[in-house]
Amino acid sequence: MAEAARPVRCIVKLGGAAITNKGELESIDEGSLRSSCAQLRQAMSDNAAPEKVMGMDWSRRPGESADPVVDTEGFADMDGPGLDTNFVVVHGAGSFGHFQASRSGAHKGGLHTTLVKAGFVATRISVTSLNQEVVRALAREGIPSIGLSPFACGWSTRQRKLVSANASQIIQSLHAGFVPVLHGDGVLDELLDCTILSGDVIIRHLAQLLSPKYVVFLTDVHGVYDRPPTDPNAVLLREIEVDDNGGWSIVKPALQGNKRGVETSVAAHDTTGGMETKILEAAAIARLGVDVYITKVDTEHSLRALKGDVNTSSDDWLGTVICRSAK
Amino acid sequence: MAEAARPVRCIVKLGGAAITNKGELESIDEGSLRSSCAQLRQAMSDNAAPEKVMGMDWSRRPGESADPVVDTEGFADMDGPGLDTNFVVVHGAGSFGHFQASRSGAHKGGLHTTLVKAGFVATRISVTSLNQEVVRALAREGIPSIGLSPFACGWSTRQRKLVSANASQIIQSLHAGFVPVLHGDGVLDELLDCTILSGDVIIRHLAQLLSPKYVVFLTDVHGVYDRPPTDPNAVLLREIEVDDNGGWSIVKPALQGNKRGVETSVAAHDTTGGMETKILEAAAIARLGVDVYITKVDTEHSLRALKGDVNTSSDDWLGTVICRSAK
Repeated sequence: MAEAARPVRCIVKLGGAAITNKGELESIDEGSLRSSCAQLRQAMSDNAAPEKVMGMDWSRRPGESADPVVDTEGFADMDGPGLDTNFVVVHGAGSFGHFQASRSGAHKGGLHTTLVKAGFVATRISVTSLNQEVVRALAREGIPSIGLSPFACGWSTRQRKLVSANASQIIQSLHAGFVPVLHGDGVLDELLDCTILSGDVIIRHLAQLLSPKYVVFLTDVHGVYDRPPTDPNAVLLREIEVDDNGGWSIVKPALQGNKRGVETSVAAHDTTGGMETKILEAAAIARLGVDVYITKVDTEHSLRALKGDVNTSSDDWLGTVICRSAK
Repeated sequence: MAEAARPVRCIVKLGGAAITNKGELESIDEGSLRSSCAQLRQAMSDNAAPEKVMGMDWSRRPGESADPVVDTEGFADMDGPGLDTNFVVVHGAGSFGHFQASRSGAHKGGLHTTLVKAGFVATRISVTSLNQEVVRALAREGIPSIGLSPFACGWSTRQRKLVSANASQIIQSLHAGFVPVLHGDGVLDELLDCTILSGDVIIRHLAQLLSPKYVVFLTDVHGVYDRPPTDPNAVLLREIEVDDNGGWSIVKPALQGNKRGVETSVAAHDTTGGMETKILEAAAIARLGVDVYITKVDTEHSLRALKGDVNTSSDDWLGTVICRSAK
């Protein structure tokens, strides 16, 4: 397998809840998506003088009749996009895919039934159409994004655990200066026939393979709370440490009883896990020695997280840091 | 690599000229696309009693606000889709991708320039959006279609020749009862950095790997002519035989001089070849012993070709058959 020439700087999860309107079928939160892409561009330009954005989506947009205008001379004058593009983006499904998967049970497998087979097809259509929109939104910000579906990359599972997940296409795309954009996807499963692979599981696997400097989860709340964030007494957990034995403890804020459990709510239609999966996957990443920042999309905090500019000793950054204990 | 459990029945090329309006940027010929998918379904059902089509595209369509209606009970009552789905679909780009590739020169390579990098990104956005529409059109006809981008499958070239083109994802999709849908795509090239891989080259490679019973090219004219089909004196070549040494001869109709050349026109913006590439690739497929049928989309002739029901000894089928000479 090809090796990464230089370490990946950051793997970003654009949470389904962050970039879609979860209550409404197949509805993108355009503002959050645009902001995420603009912030990613800022993080990639690393405080260089702001350049004119040269958009890389030269396709017609729905409802527009005019042909796209392409400033080929402007491109020809550029030395390069001037971006450190050594990022990988993974996004969740949100209001894309979940409806199709839960109506058919495609996440539970069983392709011999026509309902599951149809639901699998329908799920992939839905999640790949969101992927297309994320790739286009990144390209409009001048980020050379390349959509890579885990199914097409040949990823597959056995009883929902990843067994085949070759990253050579991802690594080659990074080498060539592209930003791979993966997504939660329907995949084939050796025992169940098929299942749904969540974006969070993809992130953990990629963190293992690519050893990024840090991983950012952008979501619709400020981070991990000690109970559902809709609860008025919910407390944002600022810093969580994990150890090598699978244990974890809340470092900040000091709560009564350090190992106090974290209650979370999982939406009934969320076929791939929700917040609980997210914490477990984030802890597994932190255990690799990669810092994980979980924060709210479209805020100053998300921009700082994407830049890797998070300092747990000050209180002005709102979010959750999960890291390996120093011991 | 996985082996195909049973031979693939047919590989179908939906030509870019057949399913898009070539003169208009990113415009699908909805009628031809719908007809191709309906005819494919007919060919797959093999004269069984026509069943109610259970659509597998459960996504919202642009401009529609209503949620899709899914008849899960109807699906649950079905024994199976009742289709012989052992087909592979490959489509061209037509008015998708060519604009972006030719404006940037992405087909000629050179990713160190921002223009080529941007054009490569823009080209992939355009061709994958067409792929999404083809997959959806097939799914609406109850065909369990799965989009597979050559780039994401890890296909790459060296000086425009395929060097890495693993078909295991395609074979596994066929095993699972899905119809893989590939497309002409931007790929990485070992010498040029990047290039555009045409659907015709993909078809030839797949014919080699999968040994289908026959290959069908659906296009916007009735077949291969002895000169550009816009020429009023153009003669449709009904049957072409190829031999193992790379030679070929026109069997029907009898023209003056059997080895008479075939003049073709290649549209200036066609970055992957046009009719000339098509004939060369078709001849290479026929040389494998696989019959090739080239005919016009959305006709009785295309339906017969998709069913494999072509008899060169009668004159009622309009199209070109390319096959290996008997000896």
